[in-house]
Amino acid sequence: MKIEKFAIKSEGEWCSMRSGHSLVFQQFEQVVSNVSIKLIDINSPEVESLIKSKIKGELKPICPFRVDWEAESDWEQENSSGVASGSCLLIPFPTSSTEGMMLRSVGYTEEIETVSRYEFLSDGTFILTTKYNQSTTEERIWFLSENLRCRSSVIKTAKGTGILQTSYSSEIRRLKD
Amino acid sequence: MKIEKFAIKSEGEWCSMRSGHSLVFQQFEQVVSNVSIKLIDINSPEVESLIKSKIKGELKPICPFRVDWEAESDWEQENSSGVASGSCLLIPFPTSSTEGMMLRSVGYTEEIETVSRYEFLSDGTFILTTKYNQSTTEERIWFLSENLRCRSSVIKTAKGTGILQTSYSSEIRRLKD
Repeated sequence: MKIEKFAIKSEGEWCSMRSGHSLVFQQFEQVVSNVSIKLIDINSPEVESLIKSKIKGELKPICPFRVDWEAESDWEQENSSGVASGSCLLIPFPTSSTEGMMLRSVGYTEEIETVSRYEFLSDGTFILTTKYNQSTTEERIWFLSENLRCRSSVIKTAKGTGILQTSYSSEIRRLKD
Repeated sequence: MKIEKFAIKSEGEWCSMRSGHSLVFQQFEQVVSNVSIKLIDINSPEVESLIKSKIKGELKPICPFRVDWEAESDWEQENSSGVASGSCLLIPFPTSSTEGMMLRSVGYTEEIETVSRYEFLSDGTFILTTKYNQSTTEERIWFLSENLRCRSSVIKTAKGTGILQTSYSSEIRRLKD
């Protein structure tokens, strides 16, 4: 399963440099974040609880993982220290070796539970597409080396005709001392 | 030929928002540019002259195009008005419907004539790899819609072991009045 290898390769502590492009207003956003990715036991209560909340029929979950992040943006200050943070549990349900569904406890664009579709391109690039109430988001992740992940995203209007924002992150693995 | 469709789709006037990430120093760069892409007659003198300067054996050129740009960066001021500009002629030599060589009059990372390798991924993403004297560069371009192109690049050390800089551009087509 490509998704299993992808999750294992992603596990670790990352330092992320993220640039957001607001297309209509031609504005740049810059964010530096710490991102932590951990594989989670498939039998853990949080995994079972999320699966129960969204019925997935015959599909079998594999290799769930959690993403935690702490970000400092130059656009908005989420709290008094200017630091925003969050956490998301992701559970893949492969439909083939290169495609599947992805359950997420928190979406990327809207903070709701979502069911996304994922696929891998011929060079291993991972693409995740999510339909929200107000928008559709495509995220793509590819590895430039074992220790550098690239991540781009695009937020479209719900019908997919207008594009609101794009972003790009360089994620560098924090090596252990 | 995918390269022909790609060149035709790229022709036009674009407004580019580009973010550069200097990984070692964790620095962000922001650049707004005007980019113009034009198909060029394959029998034009500039095309013939560039081909003569690099012998390509049996391969046949197809669909050459020129990229002109004018950029304003927040990092460096190339001349008194802070505007940098340039021009590059590109000539594809397909080796199959999805792969080939690309002759360039000016490289991306070093200002020399280069011969790059290109390929298309399964979703149509275009990847261009260039070996320079001091570095290796990978550029990837994909269309999010007819009027929005994304472009990412990575600059590695010549041996490919170290990664120096990444960048990402959102390129929005300027529609005619």
